[in-house]
Amino acid sequence: MAMAPALIAIDWGTTSARAYRLDARGQILDARSAPLGVQQVSAGGFPAALNALLGGRVDADVPLLACGMIGSRQGWIEAPYIRCPAGLEEIAANLSSVPGTRLAIVPGLICHDADGVPDVMRGEETQILGTLDDRQPSASRLIVLPGTHSKWARIGAGGIEAFATFMTGELYALLHDHSILGRLATAGAGDDTAFERGVRMSLRDAGALPHDVFSARTLALTGALAPEGVADYLSGLLLGAEIAAARRWADRDALGNGSVTLVGDAALCARYRRALALAGFKTVSGPSEAAARGLWRIALQAGMLAT
Amino acid sequence: MAMAPALIAIDWGTTSARAYRLDARGQILDARSAPLGVQQVSAGGFPAALNALLGGRVDADVPLLACGMIGSRQGWIEAPYIRCPAGLEEIAANLSSVPGTRLAIVPGLICHDADGVPDVMRGEETQILGTLDDRQPSASRLIVLPGTHSKWARIGAGGIEAFATFMTGELYALLHDHSILGRLATAGAGDDTAFERGVRMSLRDAGALPHDVFSARTLALTGALAPEGVADYLSGLLLGAEIAAARRWADRDALGNGSVTLVGDAALCARYRRALALAGFKTVSGPSEAAARGLWRIALQAGMLAT
Repeated sequence: MAMAPALIAIDWGTTSARAYRLDARGQILDARSAPLGVQQVSAGGFPAALNALLGGRVDADVPLLACGMIGSRQGWIEAPYIRCPAGLEEIAANLSSVPGTRLAIVPGLICHDADGVPDVMRGEETQILGTLDDRQPSASRLIVLPGTHSKWARIGAGGIEAFATFMTGELYALLHDHSILGRLATAGAGDDTAFERGVRMSLRDAGALPHDVFSARTLALTGALAPEGVADYLSGLLLGAEIAAARRWADRDALGNGSVTLVGDAALCARYRRALALAGFKTVSGPSEAAARGLWRIALQAGMLAT
Repeated sequence: MAMAPALIAIDWGTTSARAYRLDARGQILDARSAPLGVQQVSAGGFPAALNALLGGRVDADVPLLACGMIGSRQGWIEAPYIRCPAGLEEIAANLSSVPGTRLAIVPGLICHDADGVPDVMRGEETQILGTLDDRQPSASRLIVLPGTHSKWARIGAGGIEAFATFMTGELYALLHDHSILGRLATAGAGDDTAFERGVRMSLRDAGALPHDVFSARTLALTGALAPEGVADYLSGLLLGAEIAAARRWADRDALGNGSVTLVGDAALCARYRRALALAGFKTVSGPSEAAARGLWRIALQAGMLAT
């Protein structure tokens, strides 16, 4: 006999959405994904998109909690950003309810650097809370969430104290798909040596991305880099540039035991692990399904679950 | 009565070609341009392209000298790179003749950084020689040639001693035309304040391009940057990142009198001048038609001209 769900948790991003049914202990009963991200749904189409995502199966009286771009200006309703530092309590106290539904949306976070320049996240705050779950929540450390727009978050007594975004994944796609460098690349089986060479190039004291990316061309042109290695070299250059900048950004005190927690897609995290090792960072892996775990913790804290 | 030409000088690049007829004193008699860059001409099509560029007007016995991508692997014939340091003598001694024609092609330059990573130029070496023409050729200084791939060159007793490429123009086009940032930008009349704000952002000690570009989004999102200013802000960020990296690259001794010479398109040079001023660089303008002047000097040095 199937367990009754206690929460529908939805990680609703730009390009896709993933819904989890969680039981009364927060265990995942099942999950469904659909290419119904915020960019794919037109205004007014969100009720139908939710119904499609859930496969038409609506569990009566079960609360729903969503995080991610669904709470952005282009989403269903705007769930205003809250300011860092913010932890579980502040986030759970600032959910936005979608009128006429049992759905609530997690706020995004905003932080400002020393010059007042803002940075924002939506969805990653929930993955971070899901990662902090079974660890000392207030221990200082860094959590890295690789992706199109990678996030580095500094965790401390106040929860998520600050974070920084790096457009690494998007820059890679731009350079690979549209630049003169991509035209030199041919598909290969994956060249770890070329990848690590790129990372090391960007980690040099003299590292300067707008210059260093040109080396993908000059090394290929002079026969010092095989066309099959160009894409991995470029990927290494961009990851290395992210890490070089992020380690300047991160307060070294925030490293705590010296290790960085990686959260996200396993293959991408493996790439980051290799690059971070070259920069002298130890890494540990965050939990899988961090978003579902985070949504569960927020729903509990917010008192959304029947007791 | 029209003067007889002594040299046909051709600046033959990736997307377009420009031919000058020069008289016996090196003065420009006339010039013609055509969208017949190396990328537009298929293999075997260069004789016809040259004829079209010259408007079918072939001056008997007049030598032709070309610089730029016409000497690359994708050009008419490959004119091998020569190594830095290199000045007028080395360049003029290494022309490549196109068999069956009166056309010679200027070599590109290659230099290597402290780690042995190569950088290359084709065409800019000729513009630099055209710029050095009426100045002390061996005085230490920096010459900057803005463009899709901007070049910074360090000039000294050996001529062009070293140089570095920055993919600033191409990165701007990628981010503006294909990224999430470009989608936020709306056309405007040109926003100098947004441009300078971007330059200053990248010149900060904490400047880190893969992070800083995201601020074009967050500032727009929070209403701190008008959509009409996004493109200029992004342009400023990229120029600032180039300058921040280039001033680390450049040996400060190479600055000589402290000013940087700007060579190229007037509007683009004006942008660079404004950005360089924010970084504390004085600038002077190079000559117009620097490529034609450089080709003339090289042809003279190589003994191509009838005496």
